Amino acid sequence: MKSILTIVTFAAVLLGHTAFAQTAFKIIPLGVKGGIDESNLSSYMIAPQGSNDYVCLDAGTLHYGIKKAIQAKLLRGTADEVLKRNIKGYLVSHAHLDHLAGMIINSPDDSTKNIYGLDYCLDVLKDKYFSWKSWANFADQGEKPALGKYHYTVLTPGEETPLQNTTMQVTAFPLSHGSPYQSTAFLVRYKEAYVLYLGDTGPDSVEHSDRMQQLWQHVAPLLKEKKLKALFIEVSFTNEQPDKQLFGHLTPHWLMSELQVLASLSGTEALKNFPVVITHIKPGANREQLIPAQLKKYNPLQVKLIIPEQAKLLTF
Amino acid sequence: MKSILTIVTFAAVLLGHTAFAQTAFKIIPLGVKGGIDESNLSSYMIAPQGSNDYVCLDAGTLHYGIKKAIQAKLLRGTADEVLKRNIKGYLVSHAHLDHLAGMIINSPDDSTKNIYGLDYCLDVLKDKYFSWKSWANFADQGEKPALGKYHYTVLTPGEETPLQNTTMQVTAFPLSHGSPYQSTAFLVRYKEAYVLYLGDTGPDSVEHSDRMQQLWQHVAPLLKEKKLKALFIEVSFTNEQPDKQLFGHLTPHWLMSELQVLASLSGTEALKNFPVVITHIKPGANREQLIPAQLKKYNPLQVKLIIPEQAKLLTF
Repeated sequence: MKSILTIVTFAAVLLGHTAFAQTAFKIIPLGVKGGIDESNLSSYMIAPQGSNDYVCLDAGTLHYGIKKAIQAKLLRGTADEVLKRNIKGYLVSHAHLDHLAGMIINSPDDSTKNIYGLDYCLDVLKDKYFSWKSWANFADQGEKPALGKYHYTVLTPGEETPLQNTTMQVTAFPLSHGSPYQSTAFLVRYKEAYVLYLGDTGPDSVEHSDRMQQLWQHVAPLLKEKKLKALFIEVSFTNEQPDKQLFGHLTPHWLMSELQVLASLSGTEALKNFPVVITHIKPGANREQLIPAQLKKYNPLQVKLIIPEQAKLLTF
Repeated sequence: MKSILTIVTFAAVLLGHTAFAQTAFKIIPLGVKGGIDESNLSSYMIAPQGSNDYVCLDAGTLHYGIKKAIQAKLLRGTADEVLKRNIKGYLVSHAHLDHLAGMIINSPDDSTKNIYGLDYCLDVLKDKYFSWKSWANFADQGEKPALGKYHYTVLTPGEETPLQNTTMQVTAFPLSHGSPYQSTAFLVRYKEAYVLYLGDTGPDSVEHSDRMQQLWQHVAPLLKEKKLKALFIEVSFTNEQPDKQLFGHLTPHWLMSELQVLASLSGTEALKNFPVVITHIKPGANREQLIPAQLKKYNPLQVKLIIPEQAKLLTF
């Protein structure tokens, strides 16, 4: 008996801890970039492990990302089938086109589902995108005739809402994205496990805001209890970008500075090796090389930095 | 001398007429599809032969198409350089997102240039896209502050306007695209040569319109005189699509029917082997195979049917 235990222990060490740890979520990046490349804009399909009922965290690129994920054998069927059948709803962090163009462009071929967001964001969708001047109104509110394919579900900040046709729940928190423009953080829960996804945002001190502080206060206990499995947060610019030209975005320096605030609430130990997924790197000016390097170089909390790739599975 | 002439004649026959005919325009399709695929939406770079000063006919996909065209050695430099340096303006046929998303998404990285369109279309750009709720106002009119990178140039139907920083001119004609929605045809001229590009449109009889009839009347003399080098026109759906569900689009049957109207004005001979480039095939339901097959099967005027591909050069 003892020898069997030894073998099991030895195998566990060999394979690494994660091979034995149960993961709660699977996430398929459909697009990861912070602009310019229409084939690869922010969108992340998330589902509990063992389920094929996803929602999308933002929807910058859908079709092209789904096609790539099918090629990578992460999804089954045609892109059309995945869109209609596996995506049960959209969580839109804010109404900039690089976070929702895919949803609008794919809407004629989509199935009935919910669009979740804060009222600030959904109001822009109603007024600017699902309008008959710019497109067709596929939603159930706004300019008439409303075709009713999408149902707007307004989220109340800090209140948990079920994600329909999935086993997940979501809580939204307002973020500042170039004050007074608002963005959103989505805290997705499955049973006792959470993932936190932030839409575009700037640091509190530059935004003259306490939105991040409030968010960190809410999630610090979950981090401490190891219920929070991962954080998706943007780093659009390099450290060289002047604060006055951040346009509501973060740099490696500002990310680490915000994580220090979180650490002051959760304890630094909780952040050691904690998965931090870096979203929304703005292409150009060698930023796709410089930002990961700058993050790696100054990572005082030793978080586990992850640079996501289109159609490359993440599990937490 | 006679034998030399014979050899030249023989070579000309061997190489085909086009090898000797001077072409006036080069056109690089940056995107060709009628929806869904964010990496390949309607946009055509056009310049006179020998020039690198292009304008874009629509701007559904820019960056991804430019990248592909660079890979195909049709353009030099980086995608950023091509965007800034070689694209001198945008001609936007109508304000649906699959015809302008690329322009909006690339606008932060773009250089100063003109956006040309009918007032109906430019008004939607001002109100819905270059607004601070949906994006930033990079244009020089509309919601304040107007950043002034783009200058709106309103085209008057039927009046020729120079395309700034190029040697081309454009004349716009209104089209009906699901009445009362308006789209635009652009007649681009370089010296004595013309290309006609139509944005999305339905047949006159379904649209209860005479827009196409009026357009054909204008261009029939140019076709007859062989000054019109090519026609870009949409076929979104197959012949099986009921007229009531055309949503302002054409089928192979309706294209041929409209070309018959043109032939009645220009004579059928003028259309024989005339290049007709089929744009905006809507992906899905096997339409990308069926539409070319249906067009080929019933082509009574024997026009030269061309199915464009992303980053595959066209010359006329």
